[in-house]
Amino acid sequence: METGINHYGIGDSIDTYMYIKSSTKALASNGKPFLTLILSDKTGEIEAKLWDVSEENEKTFAGERTVKVQGDIQNYRGRHQLKIRNIRVTTEADGITPADLIQTAPISQEEMMDKITQFIFEMRNPNIQRITRHLLKKYQKDFLTFPAATKNHHEFYSGLAYHVVSMLDLASAIVKLYPKLDKDLLYAGVILHDLGKVFELSGPVSTVYTAEGNLLGHITIMVNEIGKAADELSIKAEEIMILQHLVLAHHGKAEWGSPKPPMVKEAEVLHYIDNLDAKINMMDRALEKVKPGEFTERVFALENRSFYKPNF
Amino acid sequence: METGINHYGIGDSIDTYMYIKSSTKALASNGKPFLTLILSDKTGEIEAKLWDVSEENEKTFAGERTVKVQGDIQNYRGRHQLKIRNIRVTTEADGITPADLIQTAPISQEEMMDKITQFIFEMRNPNIQRITRHLLKKYQKDFLTFPAATKNHHEFYSGLAYHVVSMLDLASAIVKLYPKLDKDLLYAGVILHDLGKVFELSGPVSTVYTAEGNLLGHITIMVNEIGKAADELSIKAEEIMILQHLVLAHHGKAEWGSPKPPMVKEAEVLHYIDNLDAKINMMDRALEKVKPGEFTERVFALENRSFYKPNF
Amino acid sequence: METGINHYGIGDSIDTYMYIKSSTKALASNGKPFLTLILSDKTGEIEAKLWDVSEENEKTFAGERTVKVQGDIQNYRGRHQLKIRNIRVTTEADGITPADLIQTAPISQEEMMDKITQFIFEMRNPNIQRITRHLLKKYQKDFLTFPAATKNHHEFYSGLAYHVVSMLDLASAIVKLYPKLDKDLLYAGVILHDLGKVFELSGPVSTVYTAEGNLLGHITIMVNEIGKAADELSIKAEEIMILQHLVLAHHGKAEWGSPKPPMVKEAEVLHYIDNLDAKINMMDRALEKVKPGEFTERVFALENRSFYKPNF
Amino acid sequence: METGINHYGIGDSIDTYMYIKSSTKALASNGKPFLTLILSDKTGEIEAKLWDVSEENEKTFAGERTVKVQGDIQNYRGRHQLKIRNIRVTTEADGITPADLIQTAPISQEEMMDKITQFIFEMRNPNIQRITRHLLKKYQKDFLTFPAATKNHHEFYSGLAYHVVSMLDLASAIVKLYPKLDKDLLYAGVILHDLGKVFELSGPVSTVYTAEGNLLGHITIMVNEIGKAADELSIKAEEIMILQHLVLAHHGKAEWGSPKPPMVKEAEVLHYIDNLDAKINMMDRALEKVKPGEFTERVFALENRSFYKPNF
Amino acid sequence: METGINHYGIGDSIDTYMYIKSSTKALASNGKPFLTLILSDKTGEIEAKLWDVSEENEKTFAGERTVKVQGDIQNYRGRHQLKIRNIRVTTEADGITPADLIQTAPISQEEMMDKITQFIFEMRNPNIQRITRHLLKKYQKDFLTFPAATKNHHEFYSGLAYHVVSMLDLASAIVKLYPKLDKDLLYAGVILHDLGKVFELSGPVSTVYTAEGNLLGHITIMVNEIGKAADELSIKAEEIMILQHLVLAHHGKAEWGSPKPPMVKEAEVLHYIDNLDAKINMMDRALEKVKPGEFTERVFALENRSFYKPNF
Amino acid sequence: METGINHYGIGDSIDTYMYIKSSTKALASNGKPFLTLILSDKTGEIEAKLWDVSEENEKTFAGERTVKVQGDIQNYRGRHQLKIRNIRVTTEADGITPADLIQTAPISQEEMMDKITQFIFEMRNPNIQRITRHLLKKYQKDFLTFPAATKNHHEFYSGLAYHVVSMLDLASAIVKLYPKLDKDLLYAGVILHDLGKVFELSGPVSTVYTAEGNLLGHITIMVNEIGKAADELSIKAEEIMILQHLVLAHHGKAEWGSPKPPMVKEAEVLHYIDNLDAKINMMDRALEKVKPGEFTERVFALENRSFYKPNF
Repeated sequence: METGINHYGIGDSIDTYMYIKSSTKALASNGKPFLTLILSDKTGEIEAKLWDVSEENEKTFAGERTVKVQGDIQNYRGRHQLKIRNIRVTTEADGITPADLIQTAPISQEEMMDKITQFIFEMRNPNIQRITRHLLKKYQKDFLTFPAATKNHHEFYSGLAYHVVSMLDLASAIVKLYPKLDKDLLYAGVILHDLGKVFELSGPVSTVYTAEGNLLGHITIMVNEIGKAADELSIKAEEIMILQHLVLAHHGKAEWGSPKPPMVKEAEVLHYIDNLDAKINMMDRALEKVKPGEFTERVFALENRSFYKPNF
Repeated sequence: METGINHYGIGDSIDTYMYIKSSTKALASNGKPFLTLILSDKTGEIEAKLWDVSEENEKTFAGERTVKVQGDIQNYRGRHQLKIRNIRVTTEADGITPADLIQTAPISQEEMMDKITQFIFEMRNPNIQRITRHLLKKYQKDFLTFPAATKNHHEFYSGLAYHVVSMLDLASAIVKLYPKLDKDLLYAGVILHDLGKVFELSGPVSTVYTAEGNLLGHITIMVNEIGKAADELSIKAEEIMILQHLVLAHHGKAEWGSPKPPMVKEAEVLHYIDNLDAKINMMDRALEKVKPGEFTERVFALENRSFYKPNF
Repeated sequence: METGINHYGIGDSIDTYMYIKSSTKALASNGKPFLTLILSDKTGEIEAKLWDVSEENEKTFAGERTVKVQGDIQNYRGRHQLKIRNIRVTTEADGITPADLIQTAPISQEEMMDKITQFIFEMRNPNIQRITRHLLKKYQKDFLTFPAATKNHHEFYSGLAYHVVSMLDLASAIVKLYPKLDKDLLYAGVILHDLGKVFELSGPVSTVYTAEGNLLGHITIMVNEIGKAADELSIKAEEIMILQHLVLAHHGKAEWGSPKPPMVKEAEVLHYIDNLDAKINMMDRALEKVKPGEFTERVFALENRSFYKPNF
Repeated sequence: METGINHYGIGDSIDTYMYIKSSTKALASNGKPFLTLILSDKTGEIEAKLWDVSEENEKTFAGERTVKVQGDIQNYRGRHQLKIRNIRVTTEADGITPADLIQTAPISQEEMMDKITQFIFEMRNPNIQRITRHLLKKYQKDFLTFPAATKNHHEFYSGLAYHVVSMLDLASAIVKLYPKLDKDLLYAGVILHDLGKVFELSGPVSTVYTAEGNLLGHITIMVNEIGKAADELSIKAEEIMILQHLVLAHHGKAEWGSPKPPMVKEAEVLHYIDNLDAKINMMDRALEKVKPGEFTERVFALENRSFYKPNF
Repeated sequence: METGINHYGIGDSIDTYMYIKSSTKALASNGKPFLTLILSDKTGEIEAKLWDVSEENEKTFAGERTVKVQGDIQNYRGRHQLKIRNIRVTTEADGITPADLIQTAPISQEEMMDKITQFIFEMRNPNIQRITRHLLKKYQKDFLTFPAATKNHHEFYSGLAYHVVSMLDLASAIVKLYPKLDKDLLYAGVILHDLGKVFELSGPVSTVYTAEGNLLGHITIMVNEIGKAADELSIKAEEIMILQHLVLAHHGKAEWGSPKPPMVKEAEVLHYIDNLDAKINMMDRALEKVKPGEFTERVFALENRSFYKPNF
Repeated sequence: METGINHYGIGDSIDTYMYIKSSTKALASNGKPFLTLILSDKTGEIEAKLWDVSEENEKTFAGERTVKVQGDIQNYRGRHQLKIRNIRVTTEADGITPADLIQTAPISQEEMMDKITQFIFEMRNPNIQRITRHLLKKYQKDFLTFPAATKNHHEFYSGLAYHVVSMLDLASAIVKLYPKLDKDLLYAGVILHDLGKVFELSGPVSTVYTAEGNLLGHITIMVNEIGKAADELSIKAEEIMILQHLVLAHHGKAEWGSPKPPMVKEAEVLHYIDNLDAKINMMDRALEKVKPGEFTERVFALENRSFYKPNF
């Protein structure tokens, strides 16, 4: 059986190391303060409540710290919640670092970068290739460590790069089946579509939205960046406008944040690939937590659906 | 340059053989009868008007007949329309049969059947395999000749089977990238999802909806067929319910005709594969008609969007 | 004045026997466990909270048990809630059985069955009559005891049969006013429309949805059952398809769960009768709890409306 | 077989008297004027085109006149259209009056008035009775001759009164099955709900909307009238407000023209009765035109549905 | 720095006089009663919780009373909440009256009345002028003290009149820029549009909806009032219908409560002026609570948006 | 009475000079070619049909040419249409130039530029001032001649600048009433909000969308331009992001093309000013065509409403 917080069920007891991703103080309905902790290990995360906390507790269990915790997994409104019996901050003697407990992409940054570089290397359209390489290089450091979102899917360390790598594999398979697709364009769209997240989000951990993220959004930011890159590289070609369109349209519909719907074939395919990879990722994680014959908790980003895990 | 009716542009003259798919009589606004003909060749179809027709014309140019036609392609409200200069029914001397002019799948029925049979052969779950084989065999003849729809996508001879074959290729590629997917279930879903169309539609050519198609629809019909097949094969297993769910949910949302949304992972993926293949098919055909730097006519089934064909 | 839990108002004290329909444990925001009990008598049900429960309490007050309870009715977010002062499990000496406290249809199973049988007896179309009799007989036992839903309306013992009987009376009155209606078809539609609930729901009490109910739904299940019944009775006639359509379309719209809207006159009328009976039932129960000049609590299934009880 | 324009089918020839309900001049796409006539007899109406009309024709065949017409019924975009071969204005010798050809309620104004009077007579609540009698008497003449609408349902002479009479029968049947309903209130609601149409519409024939109808609408107008009537009768009682609410809410939803949804039980039932009678009326007329086994033309006011007439 | 409850931030301590606008008793999740107080001063209001209250507390801190309170402002689900440390009812010695603490319009009733009177005085259309003066005079007392709503915007003492005065200023500025507008009509629309609130709402403080407000609404009520006023003044002119239309249509759309959309130019402009003044009012109050560089709490009536206060 | 094409009514005859804005060839339903001309003078435009055109006619009456035309104004589906009796191309002898007939802003380019320059001059925030001046100067020529749209509102020569000037007046009036508004920011938003139209549209006359306009849209284009301008001016300040937000959000909602809704107060006000000016412009032009007591034709961009012109 697989271990880790995402594999435990209701009623299981745990005694393990975890990482405090965030810690929020609030007042209980009896007027006393308590902390809502989001605890993670490599497999996922769980919410936990720490009741009747002192001011000292509050400081001790502030976010971004590793802890040893004993407790029981309970059901709270259809979701898992950890009832803490004991919790303490780790010491050097525990031999545990945040890196042991933070969820991260299953392959290394180097491998991901190599793979993406190979895709860029094989592009034959020099305008598309240069723009893509230029922008990836410019934001490479953040691209390799940021999550793809604050929640819902790929919301872990290096999640952004990992999402791109999975999408490139999908794009590559689809291009083989529908050879009229312009693969340079599609690959560039995959690599750049969410790169604006390095402006929209605050960083690789304890990620929140920046003011720029709220007021402009990663789509608009990235369309601008492509325009500026073209100026810097002195590229004046239709490829720029089309790449901007792919990024602009990748949410598929105005009400989902794309002011223009896909109007180029590769833009439509990019939208599908993005959705398919994100949805499989979300379903997988919800299904990991249940046994055959059970339904998962409701997944908000999947239209609040609950999924069934067959017995066969 | 490719030839065929789908590759001509506004202003081109044609002198070619075509097949009358349908012929509808109406009154012009001057009170005189005219015929609206849908003419096809292997590459597509076009609307044509025949003005001031006599009763004899009407019979001569009734549907499902091959003709020799001269005329000019014009723009009518953003769509191609053929202005007929001359038209005559073919004679034996022309050496032309409907089969030469009817749009059909690009691969033969035998090849398609072999490919699907191979997918069924490799299934390891005996319940899924038996149900799929049983139903395919039962409706094989119609399955291999029916279109996938009356319009929008794969609306040609053998279009249903061809859509399934393309989707199997997509499913196979996706299963390799996301190995936790149950491939037997997904392949069976692909093969069966639209099989109810052999009840919903009237036949392989001049296809219209049957009363059963209007009142029950191919989804409900097929869910029933799976239930009956299970009875005939004496299979009482959860696989039946899950296969019925895949068929039931493949339109994705209640307002699109699925009374239950996908609630099993393979059902969600099936919905995506179905959409992706249909949409690429529709975009390809719209884009075939335009030159680089132009926009296509609006495609109703793609939210009435118009697509741009880049210059590079 | 009428007695029973549905007739008490805010501020009333009660000292009565009740039945625990369900008991759910949760953690209070002070970290201590409490039980949320749904208590019923013949007139309705009320939510009650039992605070700071021991493990023994938890077992004692698990669901499906009769209790003696003292307490006060209070207002909680616009709804009635019982504040328990004392609660104990009944003993033989109390002379109380669950049947005394479970909400049930106001007429007996025998009377309901007699009435429905009479309606079937009077049908003149043999195909409709045989199918209806066959299916009713096959699922008679569950049909007579199941509720019509888990909540909202007719969610009590024998609620399904009672809803059908009320609808038959409505159908009969309407058929007299609009004599062109096919009454056999309409009555059969009424009797069969919700019969799939015996698969969709888990049983007559503590009712939840089954996996089949979630993945296929009572409409699809019943359409299948009609198809299988036709095979068993060797009926090959249009009546089958039309009856399936009536069941399929009785929710009225795709977004309400009917993949096809009513396209036969009796299907449209069935949809109206179903809604009208359900809505009057819901309004009556909400209005029972308030005094003239007051508004009821909001009724979620009636678009969250609140209803006014006039003073005259 | 029933005769009359609503009972003829495509391809039938007619030679009969008809009434010109309206006549609209327009230009054909060859630049010549033509008239679009709406011709009626007792059973219904049909559109007809008169091509290449002279100025004299135009005057001769202006609206509200009886004619003798020969022609053929044809299919125009899924609807019946009359192709006129001969048309002439009737003379005294024909012995035909408009009253012989205008569609009207199937029972006389006297019978309708008697029936409604009886319902009012039986009311026990004096406030409701007085208001209803007062308003009916005030607008009796128009009430008995106006249609219920310009199109869709009951759009004929005396259609308003006939719709009310049918609804009273329905209300009476429902009140017997659900005796907690306040029947005085419900009957008054039925009688008054559409009375504002005598302001909203221009008259019993060639009916169009008035400016007041467009800017205020029959609902708002009637709510005002109830208020004024109460002042005139010096009734200050809650019944006034509730009756106003019934009228205000009878369209059921804000987006259908009721600024408040039904919040009194009888208001909800009134909304259902209104809809049910209107919809059966619309379905009946569409179904009259087709043979068993056929679908009707699409009915716009029934969500553009087409209805199937079973073969049994 | 500005003082007052609307200007404090999270973490600030207060020691001040406040007015209890409302006091609601509920049970904490530990089963003990507590009070939710809405406390106000001139600048705004804040929610506060008083835990574990005795029956005496409950009476002491019932609504509409002035208190002295010490406590801390905390964050509760993104909103300000006051944690009370001490609270006592004021005595004569405090020298504080409700009028010192109740939020009210920033200009006096007299000034507002003068301004509105001036606008009426300048009207040149006697019908519009007489109706407006008549109705304003009839309901002047309530008009000058009622709030414009129970929440969202202008929900304070004299808020209704203040909203009207601001709108008159806006109307006056717009009329100067678009001189084709009928200014008499527009000003009358502004003055009368919300006057029905004096029926819809219960009074100037602790405001709730009346039964009439719920069942008919201020729009319908006011349209009736205009009709009655016209009768009383024996005005029979189109101005009445148009004024009724302006009031009827001022919410802009059926789903926002206007059964007819604006169909007269001044009606459309009235709708805009109403919205613009209300929205600026709401944004101002949300922005007052935050510092430059911060986002406000979400404002439900502004589509749940959060607003950013720039740093420059 | 005012003269010009926008002031004529149904039945009026005209004999005047007009400008052919566009000319589209199509086939009549009798198979013969005809031209649809859009003819304009200073007051507006009208559609006209020219039947049975020869190839020579086609060339003669191609777009962008001045003509002398006699004809009659008729009603076609609720809209004005000109029935041409005579038409000829003007000669030098007529002494008419396109400038005499093209609809244009009522004030000169110089006046508009002076006014806008004055607004910029008075800005106190140097970052906002420099960006605004820089961009206006860069695109000044096109800004002063382009229309604001291809149809609906301000779709005439210099319409874009005129719309901006009207909005500045509105902004100025509103800023005086709500002095907390940042007027520099609001004025800059007004000046820049639609400047991207100089890329989105093809030019000042016979205006169509460019490929860039279709694929990116004027909002996205202008947000990019602000970013590039900031780089060119080396401005790194929050003002840039906020200005970009104002442009991005000025359509108000995602489904109207703004991927972010207004989240800054001035952005919300900008959205209102833009709408109000556009709507008054559209209503004015529709109302110009009708007499008191009539309704206008339906205006698509105003939710397809028809407007009433009062008699007083």
